Amino acid sequence: MDVHEVLSKVQEGTMKIEEAEEFLKDEPYEEMGFAKLDHHRSLRSGFGEVIYCAGKSMEHLVKIYEHFAAKEGNVLGTRASAEQYEEVKKVISDIEYDAVSRTLTLQRNKLEQIGCVAVCTGGTSDIPVAEEAARTAEYFGSRVERIYDVGVAGIHRLLANTAELRKANCIIAVAGMEGALPGVVAGLVDKPVLAVPTSIGYGAHFQGLSPLLTMLNSCAEGIAVVNIDNGFGAGYMATQINRLAVKGNTAAR
Amino acid sequence: MDVHEVLSKVQEGTMKIEEAEEFLKDEPYEEMGFAKLDHHRSLRSGFGEVIYCAGKSMEHLVKIYEHFAAKEGNVLGTRASAEQYEEVKKVISDIEYDAVSRTLTLQRNKLEQIGCVAVCTGGTSDIPVAEEAARTAEYFGSRVERIYDVGVAGIHRLLANTAELRKANCIIAVAGMEGALPGVVAGLVDKPVLAVPTSIGYGAHFQGLSPLLTMLNSCAEGIAVVNIDNGFGAGYMATQINRLAVKGNTAAR
Amino acid sequence: MDVHEVLSKVQEGTMKIEEAEEFLKDEPYEEMGFAKLDHHRSLRSGFGEVIYCAGKSMEHLVKIYEHFAAKEGNVLGTRASAEQYEEVKKVISDIEYDAVSRTLTLQRNKLEQIGCVAVCTGGTSDIPVAEEAARTAEYFGSRVERIYDVGVAGIHRLLANTAELRKANCIIAVAGMEGALPGVVAGLVDKPVLAVPTSIGYGAHFQGLSPLLTMLNSCAEGIAVVNIDNGFGAGYMATQINRLAVKGNTAAR
Amino acid sequence: MDVHEVLSKVQEGTMKIEEAEEFLKDEPYEEMGFAKLDHHRSLRSGFGEVIYCAGKSMEHLVKIYEHFAAKEGNVLGTRASAEQYEEVKKVISDIEYDAVSRTLTLQRNKLEQIGCVAVCTGGTSDIPVAEEAARTAEYFGSRVERIYDVGVAGIHRLLANTAELRKANCIIAVAGMEGALPGVVAGLVDKPVLAVPTSIGYGAHFQGLSPLLTMLNSCAEGIAVVNIDNGFGAGYMATQINRLAVKGNTAAR
Amino acid sequence: MDVHEVLSKVQEGTMKIEEAEEFLKDEPYEEMGFAKLDHHRSLRSGFGEVIYCAGKSMEHLVKIYEHFAAKEGNVLGTRASAEQYEEVKKVISDIEYDAVSRTLTLQRNKLEQIGCVAVCTGGTSDIPVAEEAARTAEYFGSRVERIYDVGVAGIHRLLANTAELRKANCIIAVAGMEGALPGVVAGLVDKPVLAVPTSIGYGAHFQGLSPLLTMLNSCAEGIAVVNIDNGFGAGYMATQINRLAVKGNTAAR
Amino acid sequence: MDVHEVLSKVQEGTMKIEEAEEFLKDEPYEEMGFAKLDHHRSLRSGFGEVIYCAGKSMEHLVKIYEHFAAKEGNVLGTRASAEQYEEVKKVISDIEYDAVSRTLTLQRNKLEQIGCVAVCTGGTSDIPVAEEAARTAEYFGSRVERIYDVGVAGIHRLLANTAELRKANCIIAVAGMEGALPGVVAGLVDKPVLAVPTSIGYGAHFQGLSPLLTMLNSCAEGIAVVNIDNGFGAGYMATQINRLAVKGNTAAR
Amino acid sequence: MDVHEVLSKVQEGTMKIEEAEEFLKDEPYEEMGFAKLDHHRSLRSGFGEVIYCAGKSMEHLVKIYEHFAAKEGNVLGTRASAEQYEEVKKVISDIEYDAVSRTLTLQRNKLEQIGCVAVCTGGTSDIPVAEEAARTAEYFGSRVERIYDVGVAGIHRLLANTAELRKANCIIAVAGMEGALPGVVAGLVDKPVLAVPTSIGYGAHFQGLSPLLTMLNSCAEGIAVVNIDNGFGAGYMATQINRLAVKGNTAAR
Amino acid sequence: MDVHEVLSKVQEGTMKIEEAEEFLKDEPYEEMGFAKLDHHRSLRSGFGEVIYCAGKSMEHLVKIYEHFAAKEGNVLGTRASAEQYEEVKKVISDIEYDAVSRTLTLQRNKLEQIGCVAVCTGGTSDIPVAEEAARTAEYFGSRVERIYDVGVAGIHRLLANTAELRKANCIIAVAGMEGALPGVVAGLVDKPVLAVPTSIGYGAHFQGLSPLLTMLNSCAEGIAVVNIDNGFGAGYMATQINRLAVKGNTAAR
Repeated sequence: MDVHEVLSKVQEGTMKIEEAEEFLKDEPYEEMGFAKLDHHRSLRSGFGEVIYCAGKSMEHLVKIYEHFAAKEGNVLGTRASAEQYEEVKKVISDIEYDAVSRTLTLQRNKLEQIGCVAVCTGGTSDIPVAEEAARTAEYFGSRVERIYDVGVAGIHRLLANTAELRKANCIIAVAGMEGALPGVVAGLVDKPVLAVPTSIGYGAHFQGLSPLLTMLNSCAEGIAVVNIDNGFGAGYMATQINRLAVKGNTAAR
Repeated sequence: MDVHEVLSKVQEGTMKIEEAEEFLKDEPYEEMGFAKLDHHRSLRSGFGEVIYCAGKSMEHLVKIYEHFAAKEGNVLGTRASAEQYEEVKKVISDIEYDAVSRTLTLQRNKLEQIGCVAVCTGGTSDIPVAEEAARTAEYFGSRVERIYDVGVAGIHRLLANTAELRKANCIIAVAGMEGALPGVVAGLVDKPVLAVPTSIGYGAHFQGLSPLLTMLNSCAEGIAVVNIDNGFGAGYMATQINRLAVKGNTAAR
Repeated sequence: MDVHEVLSKVQEGTMKIEEAEEFLKDEPYEEMGFAKLDHHRSLRSGFGEVIYCAGKSMEHLVKIYEHFAAKEGNVLGTRASAEQYEEVKKVISDIEYDAVSRTLTLQRNKLEQIGCVAVCTGGTSDIPVAEEAARTAEYFGSRVERIYDVGVAGIHRLLANTAELRKANCIIAVAGMEGALPGVVAGLVDKPVLAVPTSIGYGAHFQGLSPLLTMLNSCAEGIAVVNIDNGFGAGYMATQINRLAVKGNTAAR
Repeated sequence: MDVHEVLSKVQEGTMKIEEAEEFLKDEPYEEMGFAKLDHHRSLRSGFGEVIYCAGKSMEHLVKIYEHFAAKEGNVLGTRASAEQYEEVKKVISDIEYDAVSRTLTLQRNKLEQIGCVAVCTGGTSDIPVAEEAARTAEYFGSRVERIYDVGVAGIHRLLANTAELRKANCIIAVAGMEGALPGVVAGLVDKPVLAVPTSIGYGAHFQGLSPLLTMLNSCAEGIAVVNIDNGFGAGYMATQINRLAVKGNTAAR
Repeated sequence: MDVHEVLSKVQEGTMKIEEAEEFLKDEPYEEMGFAKLDHHRSLRSGFGEVIYCAGKSMEHLVKIYEHFAAKEGNVLGTRASAEQYEEVKKVISDIEYDAVSRTLTLQRNKLEQIGCVAVCTGGTSDIPVAEEAARTAEYFGSRVERIYDVGVAGIHRLLANTAELRKANCIIAVAGMEGALPGVVAGLVDKPVLAVPTSIGYGAHFQGLSPLLTMLNSCAEGIAVVNIDNGFGAGYMATQINRLAVKGNTAAR
Repeated sequence: MDVHEVLSKVQEGTMKIEEAEEFLKDEPYEEMGFAKLDHHRSLRSGFGEVIYCAGKSMEHLVKIYEHFAAKEGNVLGTRASAEQYEEVKKVISDIEYDAVSRTLTLQRNKLEQIGCVAVCTGGTSDIPVAEEAARTAEYFGSRVERIYDVGVAGIHRLLANTAELRKANCIIAVAGMEGALPGVVAGLVDKPVLAVPTSIGYGAHFQGLSPLLTMLNSCAEGIAVVNIDNGFGAGYMATQINRLAVKGNTAAR
Repeated sequence: MDVHEVLSKVQEGTMKIEEAEEFLKDEPYEEMGFAKLDHHRSLRSGFGEVIYCAGKSMEHLVKIYEHFAAKEGNVLGTRASAEQYEEVKKVISDIEYDAVSRTLTLQRNKLEQIGCVAVCTGGTSDIPVAEEAARTAEYFGSRVERIYDVGVAGIHRLLANTAELRKANCIIAVAGMEGALPGVVAGLVDKPVLAVPTSIGYGAHFQGLSPLLTMLNSCAEGIAVVNIDNGFGAGYMATQINRLAVKGNTAAR
Repeated sequence: MDVHEVLSKVQEGTMKIEEAEEFLKDEPYEEMGFAKLDHHRSLRSGFGEVIYCAGKSMEHLVKIYEHFAAKEGNVLGTRASAEQYEEVKKVISDIEYDAVSRTLTLQRNKLEQIGCVAVCTGGTSDIPVAEEAARTAEYFGSRVERIYDVGVAGIHRLLANTAELRKANCIIAVAGMEGALPGVVAGLVDKPVLAVPTSIGYGAHFQGLSPLLTMLNSCAEGIAVVNIDNGFGAGYMATQINRLAVKGNTAAR
């Protein structure tokens, strides 16, 4: 029911002014006391709900998962600890936890995985962030190709995987240390590259500042950057791009 | 002619070993003495050549434009000065210059503009960066919708343009000062948002560091960031996404 | 007794020069050995004493609370731990502790809560800082309206609360992550907005530097900023403004 | 005409659905092509329009001033250059320019100056920023008391002016170098102190970063900070507070 | 025995060339395998040895203290932990430990305490650093006057102690938070002020960066700064100045 | 006339209460409209007035010099330009300007130069800052020994001057680039070393940040640091120390 | 077998096209599932494999060591913990662990130690980083001369070791605190100096930033810098230089 | 004549004590009033003198060049301007200036160019820094191979030059923007790589900070870094390594 319909009903007399007023001022979110769950945004975006678990109290977290289990059956939690998993599992037995990516997933209605998002890393230490990206993309319905430990200090490892990279609709390049991988990848493909700096490094690395700057300053074309260690953000946006490539802009039609 | 063909010819005796070696080691770029023009990358990506004009000597710049005028007929120059335009114009009369975006364009074969990329700005001072993004996207074949001066301090100006934003396949959000625009935009649409921080501001703005951090830390989903003032980078990647949305991944078929 | 009275008494001979000298050089604070309690400032400002508990030794803290319990009956402690509460409670049974805001309060003479200070947050993780602000304002006699989890990534949640915000004499806007909330709020109201950046975030957030810069660079008018996580400072100043709005400047009359 | 009225008219049949739709989607700002003038915000806040002149093209600036001269007769320009003044004066002869504060003012309907805002500076070099604050406050209707060159390295100069400071409803403390003035002032008064760091200094001053940090970390209570050199922002918010002190919250009644 | 004496003896034949060569190349320190104890520097400066205990292995630390106990009877250890004290005490029963300043002192030949060094702090949290300064100065023979908790937010507490400050030959001013104390002190006295920033603070304090910058940018004359939390460094240099004031430059005579 | 005398006169009836009040509230500085000249501080410290010329308007600067020429006959200006010298010279013919140190001096009553302050530099580019220090020290009555271009990359140049360094009561060590000179000097002498970082350098020098950090982190004992390029500050404090060494603490007697 | 040989064999018919294709596309690394071991790089460089142990899971680490124990017999692990040593030892009994340098070494075929690399440190706290450098150089076949605790605050300790330093083909200078050692060393020798900043320090040291900047800004010639605490990197490159000095460039012949 | 000889002569009576003293204290540099020319260091290192021209006064610069022209006939000036060249040329007609590298060279006795140093750049804008490195290496006797514009965004350009890179004894890799080139190069060769970050870039490049951090954090082995834009430093150290590779350590024999 949109504004036109509401106005039509008022004109017809099938809706009272007070009801129409109510509709127009209606708060498009659900109040939980300590939080305002934003169903509106989820529905609009075509993506299910996401919970950032780190720092949430156990009591609040369990309540949120119960709410979704009852209502929608699907929710993706990120940065979840093993302890949080244990508690949530007590009330929702089919919850799933992946210790590497720290994702805590309830997905009773799984999406078909379409298209292709490639996720590559510079080293093995970047894998947790890459897995957060990969599992986010899979949760929202992307097929994911993993290409790990192909850092630029041994460039032949990356070059040997060029064909795989070129098949993807979007590439997520995850790197700590000097963070040069996304720039080299972007020079090898003609699709968008989402660069994810990681906090892996020491000394003048400054907890990820070094690869972040590297990626922002890349000479290569077709590269954009998300926050340090933000695998989720990259997986989400990669899925938006992958969907556009496979289905086109359904909203625009 | 790929590796298989070369090897076949060698086996057949129709190609000498020396010729095959020559092919395999062939440098896939054109040497200009002071630069190595990378036709290979352009051909592969389906995007024409781009020249970053700032800091190039007048002599080198003119030579590069002459080269492209003779060979391909298309080239996009960014960060060009009025002086550079005057000099290049002396030898290439149909060169075009836009003083706001500082683009210096030769485009004898214009591309059809398809799909939709929306470009919005927080203030009027951000327009030069936004125009660099918009003209880059147009040069490479995207239709562009401009929505300027819709900063979040007067949120109703942005909300009044929500419908326009939602039609685009990709949104470029350009903002200086506190740089909050991209995060609010990303909360209103379900398409990828490319955030461009600008160096417009003073004091604790630190030449764009403040909006850069704002954009990297956005809570909104579906947002990635390019370098400060990098309108070109955003326009390029937006076109990659827009093409995928309109044409799908032609390489993947 | 002010300087004029002292001089009059000396002229009249009812006060000796030595006594007058003593008065003029009198140290306007109470020496506790390890600290100088500044009653003068409290009396002058019309605000009771405040203790920053973090880092204080248990022995000193208990002594300070005993001192106030004996003398004034009111004191507000901030950044107090549960352990500190347990120890102080042993000697002052009517001490109150709030675990979320970490305030440790003795308030035998409660103030009437007047006017209105609105406290809003971007997310649920910002609530502890917001509660420090809210409880400080309430302790010093402001009525507080709480509006939590209205971050700008889902702008309709904030807009749905505009009317509430506009009723307040002063708004405290608390936000971590990108910290865009205060700027948007300031664009919606015509009262002073006190912006509080929080250390909630990760990566390029740099422990609150990102929202701090965002708030300092806001384009909106009528906004000023306190230190990262300084809920107390915002609550204190909001009360000063709220009092002025309700009672006017009593000193100026 | 508000939403209720519109809906009533639709019900009565005195307004067509299309007209009502038009009203509801009406853009609450004036489109000038290159800018969206936000009358809505000005009207709501009870403050006239403000133009940040720095970086505006001469053509745009003159158009904006002509617009306001024709329509409202009042506008405050900040960070204006002498050249901008000369150009605007050609078309608006009663425009006024102050070279110290760099304000460019058209104010045909002057406001009565009420209450009191004190503006103090640490040194003489801070005066331009202080004057921007003072003239902004005066433009919007505050009486201003100037107390300049009272930096803390000669503390007796400040102490000699304590009585003046205490009479104000709000104090603006402007300081470069180490920026200690606002903290000392806040310890002497019981009214809100708005701290303005300036870029005056050298070496480890880092263009105002040093006094900015000093002010954010002040131990004194009742202090909040605006951006480096942002005299306008302090003058605006001080006026909001001064109005509340003199007139109370008229909206709340 | 200096170079002239050595050469004279060689000429006289009372010293062999080999002995003279040995003298000239003699290493002016004592090799302990893991460290080179620099008696030369100590003797030259007229100050006893100092050991920075933090991070030293227990085995090495005990060896070093045993060495000094056997040889000189005096040594000052800084940044020592209670554990280190317990271990050293097992072999050197007359070792003394102060838990506040974390100094671990062996001083069998105590120096007379002469002149006056004043040590003042902004708050009570700065006392540990101040005590490191005070005890260092006392160890090396300065009389110390302690004036604690006189921060500038309650300026009358400092002013009440002006006379005490003016009697000292050198003032050490220790402050965290905004670090404004040394600048105000330097404006009140005519003797050198050594400023010590501390890491006490939070948020935009950045572990002492804020008071460090404040002190470096002070407008007051006669102020110099040591590293964050470096009470020892201030106590050492204050003693050098105090000695010069009491005894003059004995070397220059 | 001090407080005791005033009170006595009031008691005796030889001073009216109003006069006494006037005395007690009397502002201890001279108001010049745009500045408050602080004679009080100068008299107390035993050092003449100092003017920081950079950024002062020509009109104000000339007025200030005229004031001192009429009243005291002595004033030291720092950071003065050749243009400022030319203007001041027009009204005060015996003003002296040194182009290297940028000092603008009026000194009709020259002080005897006593004791010894050594000023050394790492390179020749540091000489302007060193000369500001040296001339400040000379102006206030110190004898100065200059030892320039003795940077640590050629350590024998410094070692060849050790004897000279050791004779001084205080050493000022000025260095840009890596800023290691003060630490090495402090290891060679037993007197206080005032370290002055300069902005001479490039790249990762960050306008003096690098030598500033070097000096703050020096392992050597007896070293304190002033702001980048602050030759004046070092010269002033060195004179305080030099006076104490030659004359002792005259205030303490 | 190089490309020429492969082509020859194809021409001769002794290699099938498919085999040749296989050779040319062969991935020059070994896939372990979670990592891609880069034998190619090791073979090419003439240096054995190196494992950065920090952050590796116990399971992966043991698998990697087993792999090398079976295949090559040599591997150098850096940043290994005592716990990692205990686990690896269970399966490889001849593994060696050095607790100071944290190296975990399997070296069944030890290399002859040739030439000379000098490793010096500023203080005793820098020894762990220096030992990582020294043991890396020794592992790869360099003779190492250790010269520890020769910091510049006691310059005679360094000068006494000049002759030793001058004999080396390459000097590694390790220093925390102000980091001045490498610059002084480079001024004393005519061989390359590799500077290693360490994270040893406090306050304005910023975890090694201070010595890092010092070393990058050194005026001395013949100095280059590695990351903070990167003893391994310095030891590796020093060995490359030492080999060139002893054996010349064998590849170039 | 060394210490032994001196002592022998004293013993023999052929040298007076005073002469011997003179010898031992002799200052091993030449005093020019404003500078101390360090012949000692030059002679010891086997490298001629070098002058950093930027910021030198014209008068001093000409004097220095005249000095060397008269005495040694060889000197290398860096960071020289065209104006400086014009002035020096007036007195030394055979001085040579290269406008790209900004080197100002007098070299009457040219050295034979031996071995091989490769100098490569990421882009064409990095060439001035690369040329400073190349010409420094050539001046001191290295043969140089230039490989420019081989940045990693088009990795095939670099790979096509691998064979050239591998022939060199030392590689200098110069890069601005993201600065990834040195890491990729180090992965391709087995010789030391000297990384030179340049200040070429914009936005989050921070004048070279970004490539500096990239290079310090490189995962590749055999890489060390010099200051931003320090082509000279890299060329100098590369020559030291190149000499060792060609001639071995002649000092060690």
